[in-house]
Amino acid sequence: MAAQTAAPAPRPTVVFMTDFGVVDDSVALCKGVMYSIAPELRIVDLTHQVTPFSILDGARFLYGATPYFPAGTVFVVVIDPGVGSTRKAVVAKSKRGQYFVLPDNGLMTLVEDRDGIEAAREITNRDWMIGSALSSTFHGRDIFSPVAAHLARGEDWTGVGPELARNKLVRLDLVASRLDERGLSGEVIATDGPYGNLVTNVSGEDFLKLGYRQGQSVHVTVGEMEMDIPFVRTFSDVALNKPLLYIDSRGHVGLAVNQGSFAAAYSVKPPLPIFFSRARK
Amino acid sequence: MAAQTAAPAPRPTVVFMTDFGVVDDSVALCKGVMYSIAPELRIVDLTHQVTPFSILDGARFLYGATPYFPAGTVFVVVIDPGVGSTRKAVVAKSKRGQYFVLPDNGLMTLVEDRDGIEAAREITNRDWMIGSALSSTFHGRDIFSPVAAHLARGEDWTGVGPELARNKLVRLDLVASRLDERGLSGEVIATDGPYGNLVTNVSGEDFLKLGYRQGQSVHVTVGEMEMDIPFVRTFSDVALNKPLLYIDSRGHVGLAVNQGSFAAAYSVKPPLPIFFSRARK
Amino acid sequence: MAAQTAAPAPRPTVVFMTDFGVVDDSVALCKGVMYSIAPELRIVDLTHQVTPFSILDGARFLYGATPYFPAGTVFVVVIDPGVGSTRKAVVAKSKRGQYFVLPDNGLMTLVEDRDGIEAAREITNRDWMIGSALSSTFHGRDIFSPVAAHLARGEDWTGVGPELARNKLVRLDLVASRLDERGLSGEVIATDGPYGNLVTNVSGEDFLKLGYRQGQSVHVTVGEMEMDIPFVRTFSDVALNKPLLYIDSRGHVGLAVNQGSFAAAYSVKPPLPIFFSRARK
Repeated sequence: MAAQTAAPAPRPTVVFMTDFGVVDDSVALCKGVMYSIAPELRIVDLTHQVTPFSILDGARFLYGATPYFPAGTVFVVVIDPGVGSTRKAVVAKSKRGQYFVLPDNGLMTLVEDRDGIEAAREITNRDWMIGSALSSTFHGRDIFSPVAAHLARGEDWTGVGPELARNKLVRLDLVASRLDERGLSGEVIATDGPYGNLVTNVSGEDFLKLGYRQGQSVHVTVGEMEMDIPFVRTFSDVALNKPLLYIDSRGHVGLAVNQGSFAAAYSVKPPLPIFFSRARK
Repeated sequence: MAAQTAAPAPRPTVVFMTDFGVVDDSVALCKGVMYSIAPELRIVDLTHQVTPFSILDGARFLYGATPYFPAGTVFVVVIDPGVGSTRKAVVAKSKRGQYFVLPDNGLMTLVEDRDGIEAAREITNRDWMIGSALSSTFHGRDIFSPVAAHLARGEDWTGVGPELARNKLVRLDLVASRLDERGLSGEVIATDGPYGNLVTNVSGEDFLKLGYRQGQSVHVTVGEMEMDIPFVRTFSDVALNKPLLYIDSRGHVGLAVNQGSFAAAYSVKPPLPIFFSRARK
Repeated sequence: MAAQTAAPAPRPTVVFMTDFGVVDDSVALCKGVMYSIAPELRIVDLTHQVTPFSILDGARFLYGATPYFPAGTVFVVVIDPGVGSTRKAVVAKSKRGQYFVLPDNGLMTLVEDRDGIEAAREITNRDWMIGSALSSTFHGRDIFSPVAAHLARGEDWTGVGPELARNKLVRLDLVASRLDERGLSGEVIATDGPYGNLVTNVSGEDFLKLGYRQGQSVHVTVGEMEMDIPFVRTFSDVALNKPLLYIDSRGHVGLAVNQGSFAAAYSVKPPLPIFFSRARK
């Protein structure tokens, strides 16, 4: 699925994700903080509409976006329900050479599992934080944004603070899918943007072990509901408004309705268990 | 209505529109793909909140935005209900000298009718697509974004693939407004962003043929509802919360409520037929 | 609270706020107008989702964002219920050295009270407006955007039009909080982005005059509802889903629920009066 990591970025780039929403001044003032430190910066919004406090969604979107940015890119993520508490503020460097400036609350788990962590440091250097007094509720502005800008303009990242013991980042407790002789059980973890497609934690690879070929009907249990849904390549392989099962562009099993919303048509609200029966011989 | 087209863009610029929404990582990863190919690119978001699958809205917004960008600008539009099917992926060049990278599904109709198409090519050059395997459900990432970046960084556009026969782009089936001895019939096609003003397909030019002068009351039928509404220049020409009829900033007849929402006040949900009676002598 | 103003911006920067929403082409075409005039411009979106016609929200967000941008930054704000009427279009220069391009309708009040106005000018220079005919309903496109771009690319701001008498900008009629022997009365003016925290017009400084220490319970009346809420430093100082009172990152008293929404939990819809009793000795 993943693109190859390209050559180092010729312009310092920060990719910025929060759960701040885009209705008030919060995102813009963080950008003001960053541009003041690194005037030539490029800031790419990942999204600012993560469901408030959803570390799982933040981890998923970070996992999805990182392969398409070069080594040297600085990702700053502020989904921070524990702001002002004892949770650590950290910078992690992945083995792909990308930097992650974020609260240590599980946001890195999916990237860590795929790319590996080269090292991680706690943010303690007061000179890299905002000049005025630190707030106890807006570390996006006061700590994460200025640290990201200092990194992006090329300062030595080891200056941010002391190294953490490796593998000591807080981890999300993820449910894995499970394959047995009856079939494959997993979870519907989200709907896909505005479309209402179901996103699952079941990899296409695992699904293919069930023995289905394209065009065959798959027996699926979503929550309490049982359905037979054709396994196809893309949406328009079924008639308008008909359901389909496919391997989505991130490599996971998805359920959709051609030019409609699966979630709306079948009243599905994630999270929800999902089960795929084995194909009949 | 249209501004003159300015001198060629000094920085490569991509104007980007999708129906992906802005809640997940889809838009950001397309930008990562583009910046990796054309690091000095400027990307301007047209909107990513087109109603899912609404080719008409995409065509309208493209028509609205293009006059304000210079020749050489690359527009990439991913509203693509037929992704992975036999619909073509194309690049069109308008007579204004702008490039359009999009699925061939009618998105170009309004721009074509105003600006003309100089030539169009099918996208077949695998070297301009993403390096990894192509998905069958996310051509925004795998085909349209990288092709746009290759164009924007100055590569010869004829390299994208073979020329299409001219005038062979798929066309939207648009309803035109109709003037007769009784009056002018058209359609309410949308509401205007967050304001709730009604947007119609009736040009101000055609409306003026009905014989109204500013300040006069116009007899209008919207769906089943009949109203007399003053024809004025701007919102504040009527009292607060009163309705008005005006020629909007895109040159079409609009219905609004001063500092309110016409759509909410009169429970109007487009699309809906609209009829303007002729002025009494 | 405010950061120091940094050195002059090395790149011309426009900070852009409107109530246009982000669903159609309006914001993008204003950007097209600006880039056509100032190709090297950086445009930072403050927000385009201000509640339609809410001058108070616009004034608040402008007040919040300005301290984080350097002198020389050009802010363009289009919240313009009086477009096309006799309201003036102006450029104001604050004593901090920032420029504000906006309708003269109260948007500047909070910035003016904090930073002071050095001078203000009415926009009359037709050469700085759009080349085609001016609309009477979209001055964001036809006047404010092009003027902002002319300023940002370094043209002498006195060219925009004649100076206004100082202190003659239209002012918002703001309710101030009031401290007396019983306590402190103010207003809940908004909720905080997606979180549902209450934003008040009561400064932390004034609140501290009531005699509370951190950890103490505060007797609060919100609308008709009376509550005792602990005054703490940050969200996680109370248990999950419990209410708290704190001084927010902008220096005002806020009411929140740890990892929840105060507005949803207690059905609060601003604006609403709020009253804080004095601490018992």
